[in-house]
Amino acid sequence: MERLVVIGGDAAGGATAAQARRRRGADDLEIVVVERGPYTSYSACGVPYWVGGLVAGPDALIARSPEEHRRRGLDVRLDTEAEGIDLDKREVEVRDTATGAAHRIGFDHLVLATGATPVRPPIPGIDAPGVYGVQTLDDGRALIDGFAPARTRAVVIGGGYIGIEMAEAMKQRGLAVTVLDRGAQPMSTLDPDMGVLVHTQMEALGIDVVTGADIQGIETAPDGRVRAVVTSDAEYPADVVVLGTGVRPATELARAAGLPLGDSGGIRTDLRMRVWGDDARHAGVWAAGDCVEVLNLVSGRFQHIPLGTHANKQGRVAGMNIGGDYATFPGVVGTAVSKVCDLEIGRTGLREKDAEAAGFAYETAVIESTGRAGYYPGADTMTVKMIAERVSGRLLGVQIVGRDGAAKRIDTAAVALTARMTAEDVTALDLGYAPPFSPVWDPILVAARKVAGKVAGPAL
Amino acid sequence: MERLVVIGGDAAGGATAAQARRRRGADDLEIVVVERGPYTSYSACGVPYWVGGLVAGPDALIARSPEEHRRRGLDVRLDTEAEGIDLDKREVEVRDTATGAAHRIGFDHLVLATGATPVRPPIPGIDAPGVYGVQTLDDGRALIDGFAPARTRAVVIGGGYIGIEMAEAMKQRGLAVTVLDRGAQPMSTLDPDMGVLVHTQMEALGIDVVTGADIQGIETAPDGRVRAVVTSDAEYPADVVVLGTGVRPATELARAAGLPLGDSGGIRTDLRMRVWGDDARHAGVWAAGDCVEVLNLVSGRFQHIPLGTHANKQGRVAGMNIGGDYATFPGVVGTAVSKVCDLEIGRTGLREKDAEAAGFAYETAVIESTGRAGYYPGADTMTVKMIAERVSGRLLGVQIVGRDGAAKRIDTAAVALTARMTAEDVTALDLGYAPPFSPVWDPILVAARKVAGKVAGPAL
Repeated sequence: MERLVVIGGDAAGGATAAQARRRRGADDLEIVVVERGPYTSYSACGVPYWVGGLVAGPDALIARSPEEHRRRGLDVRLDTEAEGIDLDKREVEVRDTATGAAHRIGFDHLVLATGATPVRPPIPGIDAPGVYGVQTLDDGRALIDGFAPARTRAVVIGGGYIGIEMAEAMKQRGLAVTVLDRGAQPMSTLDPDMGVLVHTQMEALGIDVVTGADIQGIETAPDGRVRAVVTSDAEYPADVVVLGTGVRPATELARAAGLPLGDSGGIRTDLRMRVWGDDARHAGVWAAGDCVEVLNLVSGRFQHIPLGTHANKQGRVAGMNIGGDYATFPGVVGTAVSKVCDLEIGRTGLREKDAEAAGFAYETAVIESTGRAGYYPGADTMTVKMIAERVSGRLLGVQIVGRDGAAKRIDTAAVALTARMTAEDVTALDLGYAPPFSPVWDPILVAARKVAGKVAGPAL
Repeated sequence: MERLVVIGGDAAGGATAAQARRRRGADDLEIVVVERGPYTSYSACGVPYWVGGLVAGPDALIARSPEEHRRRGLDVRLDTEAEGIDLDKREVEVRDTATGAAHRIGFDHLVLATGATPVRPPIPGIDAPGVYGVQTLDDGRALIDGFAPARTRAVVIGGGYIGIEMAEAMKQRGLAVTVLDRGAQPMSTLDPDMGVLVHTQMEALGIDVVTGADIQGIETAPDGRVRAVVTSDAEYPADVVVLGTGVRPATELARAAGLPLGDSGGIRTDLRMRVWGDDARHAGVWAAGDCVEVLNLVSGRFQHIPLGTHANKQGRVAGMNIGGDYATFPGVVGTAVSKVCDLEIGRTGLREKDAEAAGFAYETAVIESTGRAGYYPGADTMTVKMIAERVSGRLLGVQIVGRDGAAKRIDTAAVALTARMTAEDVTALDLGYAPPFSPVWDPILVAARKVAGKVAGPAL
């Protein structure tokens, strides 16, 4: 009987194992999932809502428990760290993190689903008590346990979507919150002219936002616990510090085994999620989730985009292929949505700086419209920015900041990008219209009209 | 100087005139808009919300008043009925509806934007006082004026989206409401297995729904006013009767002038909205809005789909072309969204019966999912039905019934239909994911996975 070993029991690993099992029974394929932590298949994306008290964690955040996986015929081994991959002998070396005991597991198929590791900038004091990551359920638990009545001031380092979600969560907990971001505006996945809308809203919520922050260190009190975050300009008192400084692909095992990494740092795979390369030892070696790089279908570049939805799709594709089906993961267009209180943010495709880096000449248009007919109650303003290639008019990217119904409108643009539509194509799209849901011209169409008018002008 | 005459001053006519004016100044093109009624550019779609008291009408429903049009250099003539088109002399015959005085206006360009006419089924008593249409602002005003404390029972004839919106509006006014629909389920723009979800919700709201209703007549009281609606099975007492029985293209003028009508009854046009045909007298004759037929890009058939968003797009295209630009209206995919209290309904593409009529062999899948991560507050169930062609897997249609965030999800499918994607293509779409907006697998993706699995099976 063949054996599939999956390293990592979160979204990508769990999806791979489940899909392989659906296609190959327990009498045909043994499936071993080794997971370094105590949980499987949990939603890291849900941690801010747990911290904010909106969701009762951590159980609610576990999509599938180890017991559920086991009932589906998976041999799930928790607290088990993979320490090495021997491609010649086709074995993985694992160690029980409690006992320290090590042994080897042979494989016919191997899936690397090792995820991502929080970036911990080399700031003095970053390891002090009171400084928290937000990547795992244990991180969430530690942060919640760290709240105490006397701890009233929080500083978030990094104003990306996780930093902003954490800032809101701690505001909801009653803390005074300051976000320190090194960029010109928070939410650098948007162009600065859209990021400023997020900035304004955060300030309106009572969250202090410091841009251009050059962090020098984290100061500690005599008891060793965090006391303040120091930038080159000022000192920000802090009882709690949260790191929203992003993640990088966890590829130590892959690197040590000589598996190929892309420029983005993620593991390179083919369309079926098999690890890239014509080395015969790569046969049966797959990778999926936050540890791989993905093709951006707009720029044609590979990127590292850690996101649960990609991890699930890639895991499904890997598992279908291991199970004998044919499936591919063609790539992404860079869609992301997030929420700051009632502000909704969506983005897809390229920002201006991405378009420039890829070599596109482009036009931009920014419009304001409403998510409902103007006369319908609750018609709030939303701002849409659209970027299109000059001459061809090809859609390159869209960003939306607004309220009710703003964020998921980005999906329309994501599909249009996937289909390589032009802005003029977008103006003709048959989008749903009714007064409670859209003006007669959906904001996406209004933006497309405006940018289509610009690209129709004289060529470069 | 050339003259453009536009017949009809609502969405399509207004958009045509405005776009032509943007491109050609008042010293280059005279623009005369003749409108039979007293209003221009109003939202008929908003009438139910006015009747329900959600919107203060009628002024709020007027997108652009005659005065606004005039300030933009349009010669708007209200209460002016076009009675004939002389293609040889290139003149329109018009009559002042107040004075009865008639005269002719010459044209270089002519736009037929004559809209649609409510279908009034040949039911005895349909013209009795107390029976209302809902097509115009005057209809809305008459209905609202007809409400009185003693008038407590309303019957809506027709359970399409307008009938359902009107039923809800009158329920909000405090009336007891019965909807009579001749079909197996209300909302026949959905397949019956999805329409039943709307039916159930309407009953839960306290609206009586009678399906399979065979209406025999409307009975009147001795004072001549409506008293009841009679079907072959029963009699439904009614103080107010609302006709939600649809509309047909208003093409009397076009027909009399010998302009070509399609099988759907709408005026045939080319992609630029010029009236079809190689007859030299059609030069400079355009049509747009509820009076034309549109190409369904999925079925390849022409249809009559009266909808403000299509009228606006077609008017823009006609106006751009008249103004010397190049623009086309490529067709529709049949998207529609509507709302019954907090129930949201979306549909696009083909129903099962449309797919059959067009000759497609297909598979269907119906799934239930949520609009947010399952653990996020307010995650309500939504039902998604997806239809895909056998063998090819090409997406043919999608229907959604759910709550918050359900309806506009249909836009994703609308773009995928436009791009002729397969269900497998849809499974890979990079749609926005964050817990407040979507589970890690958006409901659209879940449905696509299920139907893609079916079409991958053995061929027909």
